[in-house]
Amino acid sequence: MLNFNYSIQTEVFFGKDKIKVLPEQVKRYGNKVLLVYGGGSIKKNGLYDDVVRLLKENDILFWELSGVEPNPRIASVKKGVEICRSHGIELVLAVGGGSAIDCAKVVAAGVGYDGDLWDLVVNPRKIQGVLPIASILTLSATGSEMDPIAVISNLEINQKIGTRHPKMTPKFSILDPTYTFTVPRNQTAAGTVDIMSHVLENYFSPTDSAYLQNVMAEALLKTCIRYGKIVMEEPEHYEARANLMWCSSLAINGLLSLGKLTEWSVHKIEHELSAFYDITHGVGLAILFPVWMDYVLNDQTVEKFASYGINVWGLDDSEDRYEIARGAIEKTRAFFREMEMPATLREVGIDDRQLALMAKQATSDGPLGSLRPLEEGDVLAILKAAL
Amino acid sequence: MLNFNYSIQTEVFFGKDKIKVLPEQVKRYGNKVLLVYGGGSIKKNGLYDDVVRLLKENDILFWELSGVEPNPRIASVKKGVEICRSHGIELVLAVGGGSAIDCAKVVAAGVGYDGDLWDLVVNPRKIQGVLPIASILTLSATGSEMDPIAVISNLEINQKIGTRHPKMTPKFSILDPTYTFTVPRNQTAAGTVDIMSHVLENYFSPTDSAYLQNVMAEALLKTCIRYGKIVMEEPEHYEARANLMWCSSLAINGLLSLGKLTEWSVHKIEHELSAFYDITHGVGLAILFPVWMDYVLNDQTVEKFASYGINVWGLDDSEDRYEIARGAIEKTRAFFREMEMPATLREVGIDDRQLALMAKQATSDGPLGSLRPLEEGDVLAILKAAL
Repeated sequence: MLNFNYSIQTEVFFGKDKIKVLPEQVKRYGNKVLLVYGGGSIKKNGLYDDVVRLLKENDILFWELSGVEPNPRIASVKKGVEICRSHGIELVLAVGGGSAIDCAKVVAAGVGYDGDLWDLVVNPRKIQGVLPIASILTLSATGSEMDPIAVISNLEINQKIGTRHPKMTPKFSILDPTYTFTVPRNQTAAGTVDIMSHVLENYFSPTDSAYLQNVMAEALLKTCIRYGKIVMEEPEHYEARANLMWCSSLAINGLLSLGKLTEWSVHKIEHELSAFYDITHGVGLAILFPVWMDYVLNDQTVEKFASYGINVWGLDDSEDRYEIARGAIEKTRAFFREMEMPATLREVGIDDRQLALMAKQATSDGPLGSLRPLEEGDVLAILKAAL
Repeated sequence: MLNFNYSIQTEVFFGKDKIKVLPEQVKRYGNKVLLVYGGGSIKKNGLYDDVVRLLKENDILFWELSGVEPNPRIASVKKGVEICRSHGIELVLAVGGGSAIDCAKVVAAGVGYDGDLWDLVVNPRKIQGVLPIASILTLSATGSEMDPIAVISNLEINQKIGTRHPKMTPKFSILDPTYTFTVPRNQTAAGTVDIMSHVLENYFSPTDSAYLQNVMAEALLKTCIRYGKIVMEEPEHYEARANLMWCSSLAINGLLSLGKLTEWSVHKIEHELSAFYDITHGVGLAILFPVWMDYVLNDQTVEKFASYGINVWGLDDSEDRYEIARGAIEKTRAFFREMEMPATLREVGIDDRQLALMAKQATSDGPLGSLRPLEEGDVLAILKAAL
């Protein structure tokens, strides 16, 4: 196990009706709030009304940044920063999924920055002061509710980049599984794949000595598989929604990644797909992950994929290791199919025209991952195999 | 899954040579430290010298409370409180295992309390202000390095009681697995059993809907079993010591217990053994746990024990459920035996004379646990079966 520091910055209020803590928690940071949200689903399901009522009843002033895109854009960040500056905002409160939270984070980081806000995405070292951030989560997926990361897109230059800073970790997050009851079927599925992909990026690592982190990763994967299937059938299954929601936070809050090297190579490739074609993150991951697994399977990695097959998918330990490894990849592919995810790039309207450019951009900072480091040519081969 | 709040108060610095962060971390809280430690093993292995050197080099003043007992006594707490009051201590720093840390916690809580310090153990509501606490861990066992609990004994009245207060959670803990290389064989084994017992108290619960917490508990149990065996053979096996050390913290820092009812009935019974006979906590747990499992196995609980057998011990899923459950209990018993733990009370010098009194005292606040609530008669039956 490698050395690490463990520090959890976010206080989580988990469960039905936990929104009642909102006024008290907000007031720890101030009295002027920027609400950040997306396309209005929170207006349909009543959450917006609840939030507004609680704020008004407690004399908390608020302004709104609405219409944040599924892949949040730097243009939205700029709007948010302007509102904060005009009104002396003291807390940025995202109500939504990862998009709203990611946007809120860079808004909070941008208020005290004088230069071009895109700088903060490209170069997180420029992030200094950050306004306090909080979230009310409505989608189990990105884990942004408990992590220091924000992914922002700049469609003008076809870039989608993840930035991170410890101060961008939410101070508190309210996780009420009932808010995810009305998440559409395809977003529920893509969110579940997203959670699993975070676990897998941590799990497939050259650091075998972090055994505890690996078996915990298997625990999260089993949870996603078990409840992913259930929510597709019964969207209002509280137990399933609750387990997926807590998985989304634990998948990326440090628990699984500390003390080991981690991959994040598939995420880096997927960000190119989203940057060029604006597709749903989880969909891109569902297409790419099995292809990546096939590509990196070799004598050095076969044991990891075999362990994955045995411990997560219950495959027979006594079989040939390559047999088990390939079986595990096939199980993964079949599960994503069962979750009604597309399996090829063509199904989401991506052809071969931009593949070379995406491969180049994905590796512009060097090879991806450490399990089998991927050069530009490797990424191109993976993208072609995913067509 | 039941509603919960999740808030991790302790910053962890994990790995070889992490002690270098000590001066910087101490100075966040002040310049006057009370060092709390036990019987002097830290003087033999050089840790004491390292700590003292770091404090002196950084002009941090310190006083010492040494000789804290394996089951720390209220008399030691009193001594510590007096030192703190005389010298205006600003941080209580435990260097040791759970005993030193537990003692440090109640010292820190006692400084501002005017009444009899035993009140704070019996009635945690009386705890108000608490001095900042930190730890340098030398034994993987109690998890006190990351939890709000302290167990203190009062041998004059044969009582050993756990008290808890959020403010007693350490501000930071330094976890360097190499400090456990020199832990004697029997303490290493007892510590591993202690960790497993914390996981088991969380795992066997009537709340089936907290599936994620349950599979994570299985992950910790597998880790303890895997590395418990290794450290008995190779005490300086870094990977094994590291995995056990991180297990000790995660077993009881909230991760496994949130969103569910938990048992803690075996701990309550063991505290009576230690209170009357001053035996090692982990040894008492190793004797009691398999007996308790046998006792609570019935039609309501059989599925839980069968799952435990299948997922933790790899037993065959296709067998009869009682067959698997009994097999799992036998596996547990055999593992504790492999860890050279005593299997009966008589082996540690306990006969039947005080059993009735211990059963009465263990249930003085009502029945224990929720899986199968234990009345006084049940506890007595368990103690007799453990003879």
